Amino acid sequence: MEIKVLHQIMDWNEDVSEEVRARLAERGICLINVMGSPGAGKTSLITSLIEKMKDRFRIGVIEGDIAGQIDADRIAGLGIPAVQLNTDGACHIEAMSIQNILPLLPLDDLDLIFVENIGNLVCPAEFRIGESLRITILSIPEGDDKVEKYPLMFTDTDCLVLNKYDMLPYFEFDEERVSANYDSVNPGAPLFRVSSRTGEGLDELAGYLAETAAGSVS
Amino acid sequence: MEIKVLHQIMDWNEDVSEEVRARLAERGICLINVMGSPGAGKTSLITSLIEKMKDRFRIGVIEGDIAGQIDADRIAGLGIPAVQLNTDGACHIEAMSIQNILPLLPLDDLDLIFVENIGNLVCPAEFRIGESLRITILSIPEGDDKVEKYPLMFTDTDCLVLNKYDMLPYFEFDEERVSANYDSVNPGAPLFRVSSRTGEGLDELAGYLAETAAGSVS
Repeated sequence: MEIKVLHQIMDWNEDVSEEVRARLAERGICLINVMGSPGAGKTSLITSLIEKMKDRFRIGVIEGDIAGQIDADRIAGLGIPAVQLNTDGACHIEAMSIQNILPLLPLDDLDLIFVENIGNLVCPAEFRIGESLRITILSIPEGDDKVEKYPLMFTDTDCLVLNKYDMLPYFEFDEERVSANYDSVNPGAPLFRVSSRTGEGLDELAGYLAETAAGSVS
Repeated sequence: MEIKVLHQIMDWNEDVSEEVRARLAERGICLINVMGSPGAGKTSLITSLIEKMKDRFRIGVIEGDIAGQIDADRIAGLGIPAVQLNTDGACHIEAMSIQNILPLLPLDDLDLIFVENIGNLVCPAEFRIGESLRITILSIPEGDDKVEKYPLMFTDTDCLVLNKYDMLPYFEFDEERVSANYDSVNPGAPLFRVSSRTGEGLDELAGYLAETAAGSVS
């Protein structure tokens, strides 16, 4: 019974996700779903990408959190339209919530919407939310076994960001293991080595996103 | 409809959890539920605690993972009875799975069972699994805002382990913020500063667990 209901919810979610994606594409807006563990550096990465991309794109942000609005406050402090989506305990965002919250953003003035998903390497991967593009973040301190242990998050993404890359000297982290595992579950998908703190790799990632976002809505 | 079914499952889970806990207590076995983000260091902490506690307690381990058996292999390599519980995609362990897997462990020869839950700061907190004791791990690289953002995981635990404490110099991490937030959602609960790598804080944590485990089944 549990599984049956779950499938029903997920089918519904897929339908709404496609509807959201198509409506945004009509308006020339690309939604980017940013996923990763708690503390992988999602907010910092989004903040850094806004700095790199704001001259070319008009950007808005939906901040997903179980509770609170720490991250939305941080983004709004940059002068970027931001709305807070609290899931009140749920471990992922669903397309229906995005559909409900989108009218709170000034859609006529946006080209790009970043959605920061709940910090979780499992459930968010199962629920599309109207995105044209998915970013999965894995930070160096989390360890090099994560692709093997949480495969779906690395299979169902458009790109992988190895974040906090400046921390590599302080951790036992085998890059080859991660890139080989990633390539085996998601052949040919790009991998970016990034540090929001030092700025390393941000230009490459921003360039990729700009190109892909423009392509997704044209 | 979703919520209704969820409640039914959770009530059932609570009943089974209490049944598992009571049966283990009759046999003098304490089950410890170890929770935290992906990469928080759950397996390493369990491994270190086994070293510290194995002279006083006969220990077994249940390794929860979405997929694979990397961690169970690591534990079995220590000569400790270990079984692998694969959730096949699910983001938390349920009491029913523990009930089913327990007979695979040599229960007559155990005093203590560590269960490594799925790496996730959200859902595991909602499902009791027959434990007498819960440990929540937060590692320094994850950041100091996690108690505010994932409150239930820090409210419904018996103790908090600040892990990878040797990494404190390399990250902007406000310990006072974490301990104040933790104390506000879980007043009086202990907090341990631990590094599995350097060994710092392990004696204090092992001492606390030994005392609490002995008390929970006597």
